[in-house]
Amino acid sequence: MNPNLRTDEWKIIEEGFDPQFNRASESIFSIGNGHMGQRANFEEKYSGNSMQGSYIAGIYYPDKTRVGWWKNGYPKYFAKVLNSPNWIGINISVGNEVLDLETCKVESFRRILDMKSGTLEREFVCQLKSGIKISVQSKRFVSMADYETGAIEYSITPLNKDVNITTEPYIDGDVVNEDSNYNEIFWKSVSGNINSEKAVLVSITRKTNFHVAVAMKNLILINDHVISPEHNITRNDKYISRIYSTNVKKGNKLTICKFASILSSENHPVDRIAELAVDKVNKTLTAGFESLLKDHKQKWSDKWDECDIIIDGDPSAQQSIRFNIFHLYQTYTGSDHRLNIGPKGFTGEKYGGSTYWDTEAFVLSFYLNTADSGVARNLLLYRYNHLQKAIENAEKLGFKNGAALYPMVTMNGEECHNEWEITFEEIHRNGAIAFAIYRYINHTTDVNYLVDFGLEVLISISRFWCQRVNFSTVKNSYVILGVTGPNEYENNVNNNWYTNTMASWTLQYTLESLVKVEAISKDKFRSIIEKVSFSNDEAEKWREIVDNMYYPVDDELGVFLQQEGYLDKEQLTTDMLDPKERPINQNWSWDRILRSCFIKQADVLQGIYNFEERYDPETIRRNYDFYEPRTVHESSLSPSIYSIIAATIGNIDEAYKLYLRTARLDLDDYNKEVHEGLHITSMAGTWLSIVEGFGGMRIKKEKVILKPMLPGKWKSYSFYFRFHNNIVNVTADSDGATVTNLSQNIVPVEVYGVCEDIDPGKKKKFGRKD
Amino acid sequence: MNPNLRTDEWKIIEEGFDPQFNRASESIFSIGNGHMGQRANFEEKYSGNSMQGSYIAGIYYPDKTRVGWWKNGYPKYFAKVLNSPNWIGINISVGNEVLDLETCKVESFRRILDMKSGTLEREFVCQLKSGIKISVQSKRFVSMADYETGAIEYSITPLNKDVNITTEPYIDGDVVNEDSNYNEIFWKSVSGNINSEKAVLVSITRKTNFHVAVAMKNLILINDHVISPEHNITRNDKYISRIYSTNVKKGNKLTICKFASILSSENHPVDRIAELAVDKVNKTLTAGFESLLKDHKQKWSDKWDECDIIIDGDPSAQQSIRFNIFHLYQTYTGSDHRLNIGPKGFTGEKYGGSTYWDTEAFVLSFYLNTADSGVARNLLLYRYNHLQKAIENAEKLGFKNGAALYPMVTMNGEECHNEWEITFEEIHRNGAIAFAIYRYINHTTDVNYLVDFGLEVLISISRFWCQRVNFSTVKNSYVILGVTGPNEYENNVNNNWYTNTMASWTLQYTLESLVKVEAISKDKFRSIIEKVSFSNDEAEKWREIVDNMYYPVDDELGVFLQQEGYLDKEQLTTDMLDPKERPINQNWSWDRILRSCFIKQADVLQGIYNFEERYDPETIRRNYDFYEPRTVHESSLSPSIYSIIAATIGNIDEAYKLYLRTARLDLDDYNKEVHEGLHITSMAGTWLSIVEGFGGMRIKKEKVILKPMLPGKWKSYSFYFRFHNNIVNVTADSDGATVTNLSQNIVPVEVYGVCEDIDPGKKKKFGRKD
Repeated sequence: MNPNLRTDEWKIIEEGFDPQFNRASESIFSIGNGHMGQRANFEEKYSGNSMQGSYIAGIYYPDKTRVGWWKNGYPKYFAKVLNSPNWIGINISVGNEVLDLETCKVESFRRILDMKSGTLEREFVCQLKSGIKISVQSKRFVSMADYETGAIEYSITPLNKDVNITTEPYIDGDVVNEDSNYNEIFWKSVSGNINSEKAVLVSITRKTNFHVAVAMKNLILINDHVISPEHNITRNDKYISRIYSTNVKKGNKLTICKFASILSSENHPVDRIAELAVDKVNKTLTAGFESLLKDHKQKWSDKWDECDIIIDGDPSAQQSIRFNIFHLYQTYTGSDHRLNIGPKGFTGEKYGGSTYWDTEAFVLSFYLNTADSGVARNLLLYRYNHLQKAIENAEKLGFKNGAALYPMVTMNGEECHNEWEITFEEIHRNGAIAFAIYRYINHTTDVNYLVDFGLEVLISISRFWCQRVNFSTVKNSYVILGVTGPNEYENNVNNNWYTNTMASWTLQYTLESLVKVEAISKDKFRSIIEKVSFSNDEAEKWREIVDNMYYPVDDELGVFLQQEGYLDKEQLTTDMLDPKERPINQNWSWDRILRSCFIKQADVLQGIYNFEERYDPETIRRNYDFYEPRTVHESSLSPSIYSIIAATIGNIDEAYKLYLRTARLDLDDYNKEVHEGLHITSMAGTWLSIVEGFGGMRIKKEKVILKPMLPGKWKSYSFYFRFHNNIVNVTADSDGATVTNLSQNIVPVEVYGVCEDIDPGKKKKFGRKD
Repeated sequence: MNPNLRTDEWKIIEEGFDPQFNRASESIFSIGNGHMGQRANFEEKYSGNSMQGSYIAGIYYPDKTRVGWWKNGYPKYFAKVLNSPNWIGINISVGNEVLDLETCKVESFRRILDMKSGTLEREFVCQLKSGIKISVQSKRFVSMADYETGAIEYSITPLNKDVNITTEPYIDGDVVNEDSNYNEIFWKSVSGNINSEKAVLVSITRKTNFHVAVAMKNLILINDHVISPEHNITRNDKYISRIYSTNVKKGNKLTICKFASILSSENHPVDRIAELAVDKVNKTLTAGFESLLKDHKQKWSDKWDECDIIIDGDPSAQQSIRFNIFHLYQTYTGSDHRLNIGPKGFTGEKYGGSTYWDTEAFVLSFYLNTADSGVARNLLLYRYNHLQKAIENAEKLGFKNGAALYPMVTMNGEECHNEWEITFEEIHRNGAIAFAIYRYINHTTDVNYLVDFGLEVLISISRFWCQRVNFSTVKNSYVILGVTGPNEYENNVNNNWYTNTMASWTLQYTLESLVKVEAISKDKFRSIIEKVSFSNDEAEKWREIVDNMYYPVDDELGVFLQQEGYLDKEQLTTDMLDPKERPINQNWSWDRILRSCFIKQADVLQGIYNFEERYDPETIRRNYDFYEPRTVHESSLSPSIYSIIAATIGNIDEAYKLYLRTARLDLDDYNKEVHEGLHITSMAGTWLSIVEGFGGMRIKKEKVILKPMLPGKWKSYSFYFRFHNNIVNVTADSDGATVTNLSQNIVPVEVYGVCEDIDPGKKKKFGRKD
């Protein structure tokens, strides 16, 4: 953990510079706008420990798979988010000495991520080897108002001497990915075009042929007055720059504004992309830094008005929940159904494939509750558009007749992951994608989605489950053999309770959806049935499976069994583990982890979370009490689900303890891996812990249920959610909860067991009942 | 399959040259002497499809592990047998045209592996582009009489013109492994020393610093008369050669003899290795080709006298069994306990790690029966000498207190393999190593081995099993979770019957061995106990585990269950498989293979094979009848065990059918992979199928049991085996069997149920009883 980080309700502040934490800070202070992102690398040269990272959504490279021992069915490549041309760089020389914080004496340093306005700021004073002392301020953002625009304002003031300062804003296409499997360069050609009128660099990826054009414009100012100094041009291989030389008097402030437009062939024709990038950057120059910033801030302000969580009495918790919300919206805004939420967003390279089941299992609810339903709908459309690829994925594994297996990791719908126990066996992801359809419709009432898109997906997934089960004559039931459940510390197990539950639920929901769609539109129903060649025999078979699915349980303990044979393991609890051996995934060999009873993340409890209404509180409590002590929470996705269930069974202290494990995971760098990037998808879990955990919020068909509790330290907290597209605010304190209907429709609520219809624009207070 | 291969009882003959089969032939026609080996590459340049391969036993390179997703406990490297300096090369130019069978017209071609004499011969007539026609004869061998010597005799006769012929014998150290993980060159420095007196090249491996010196001497003859032509010397980087230019009249025969000595730092001091290589090659030159060949042939003749199997009435079977025996002895002669038997011997690179459980489970019996007991003893000492490494391997996986886990694949005792489901979980190999000790002592009566070496190994392996089991309160038994059995088409299963059986047997045998060693020598017993800090509590615990081990069975079917849950699988048989989908390991995704009931190789039946005496014939038959139809035999090690058991239960036709699958596996290239090398270790299985299968030979404590049957096609067959170090021959025909005692001691036998003591030098005929 970086001791230089300061608590502030709206800002992340790093006070003082310690190079050992620089990579971690580069992740934490990342900026993004859902379409591109930028690690908090310095604008000026930095020869110390740094990972350069500029990322553009949807621009990936199919890196050749690296594998020890090939298995049939493995994908040939792993799609990686690309480190893209560097648009932020500004080389600075002060009297012929290159400014580099690694080599000069840093007297003061402050880095600020302002989450309210979405800007990254930095200010420092340093003394160069020459004895010249300068102060530097920089501010930058990638615009939420124009997804293709980034802007930087960078000022230098010599403090003890007049000096000539050279500033060299550049665009550098000579970039690599640290995680390249075979040290390949992913960009095949880079060509720059620079003259007095324009500066634009076009880079093209190998294999995928994505084109990226980056154009820049610059302004030089002294004490905020624009000057027009002479300048030189550089055009090296893959690199273009302008070099300005300015004599600056002691105490005067030299400012360089750098505007960049970053366009990709995902949105523009390749033959005009350079020209369009130049046009756009010219317009941003005309608008000016302050005007661009104002539009950007307004977008963030609008966003916060619908998604902020306010916590009173715990600034650290306040900071962290905003940090999580902020980064989620920096990663994904929902405006483009081709995009999704990578586990590290735009903050690092690792897990370079864009999309995991995290999206459906954890992140979807966040967007359903904090944004217009179109955002969640785009997440669903992403999978709908990948249906054909999911069918091909399943075919590669021997499934037939339109069965679909959605990939574990993907960029374009094709499977990218290559561990048999995950790629081929962690099939519960297919259930999450079906369940997301249910959640979306339940939340938004947009039943037309089922008609237009959802049913096709459901049928294809159900076909997969139908082929994936087999009938066990010994058990006289259908079984699902050889799977990996959400708890990835078990591989190739039989009858994982969660997977069997999700499979059976999917079949049942698909059967219901067939009826529902037919009722809505016989024509559309017929056309779907025809399109996918659905037969009634299939429905018969699905019903039979639903009625005869095997679920492992232990009657004596009264718990669902994570998988068959779980109780054959030596039954230990986490308090018996030597702290030196934790995390076990860094200290134990894989076989030892597999045969131990220790659980990486919610598995049975993930199922209970999904289907809470099926189980009485005592059943939920017994399962929680059995599994929590066996869970090491070595996935960032684990504690939030446990926290919600702890809250559900009234164990608020435990819920809070678990909440703390997720809330500041990245800010406090629990797992010592923040230098690789942030845990974007698990940030949604933190949000869920507050809203569904402490707030007890549940969206039902006819109403929303709330049961807000107050964690010990907090004075009050408030959050927004959406019920059937209506925005609602809840503020909870020690007395109870106030529900405010911010929409145009009546919102029926049940708070602490009391049912009320809340009129549009009205608020209602409910006294606390525990 | 190469249609140019001809059947011959003592020879492998390739008649006609088809380049597409050249790599396969290079494997099949390999020569070796247990200390070095050489693929059947041409001496002259060949620009067609070829894999150059010269191998020296014990000289390996730790190639950096390639892995997709790292797991704790994986080894950092994979030890690979090295492709070593090429000593066979002789470049030939005929009137300025390089001789290369890829570019000239081959009019006739014959390649012969003479198994009786251990030589590789080749003769061909070809027409060069110039129109010159030549005939070529070559013969080479690596000496069984001197393990460091190779010799070649290479003759060229111009058939239609006088011509100048350049011959360039060379030593080339610029060699690579095709299977290098990261295209590394494994040899770090190569230096040649060549002048009129000597020619020697010293190569040193990277990391391991093995030194290899290759020295050569040459003779040039015309029509078998030595001439002394002028010659030039080449010394390029990593390459030395002599270039002789000779005018040869039409019809005259130019011969070049090339002698090479190949010395490694495993056997010689590095500072004198070049000098010693030169000394040795000078001596071989003095001895001459014919004299060296005579000594070599004599060694093979002596060997065949003790290990030949003669089959009358089936030349193809005769050829193949000799092919198998021949290659086994080319791979391992047993004279050096640092060496072992790699799955491909010296015939290819694949599975570059030297030693697998194949040695103990399959190959040991072959050497126990066909060689002096010192050979098998060396195989055991190999593991004894690796005990400390095996303890370290176990420690890396979290085991303690001197528990040993022998590696899955190794060169120097350290684990090399990196698939968690194999490396960490295929632990039954540990049982095979213990069982080998039992087998060796049972076969040789050398109980001192137990005292001097065996007990230590047994204690260390038993400690592993003791820590690897856990007590299941649900089953009220000890269980072994998370293993891969011999059938590698199941991973991470619980209670593999074979593994549990081997574990329990090891504990029991170790307990018995403790008693036995104490009875033999109280002093030695005490010193072992002290050395390994053995306590009686350990013995108590082992006994408890033996008494309470869990074995999965199905009472209704009356079979042992391969693992828990096996019957939950869809129960199919191999005749229901679409032939197009076979082998399934090339056509099915890994998850599908895992959850299918199909079995790669003997698993339950391997256990029944090991402990046959425990089970009544009906039990054996039930298990055979259940498992054989579910077995796809996609390991070369599988059909032999099934063949033996089929013979045991009297099913001779089935036994013969299965025997055919192993016997000509490589000659007929069933699996289309012979180009990569031969299946050396499974060749021992073929031998076992005849001796233990058709011959029904079983070594018991007090006697040897025989029950020879005759496969339909055969008129008779005979084989040798050893009983307590006594050589015995058995000849079986349709009437019965004749047992000949070739030793100095009485040999007690039970043939077709009739017990007899056979006197030294006597033979006895037994009438057939089926």
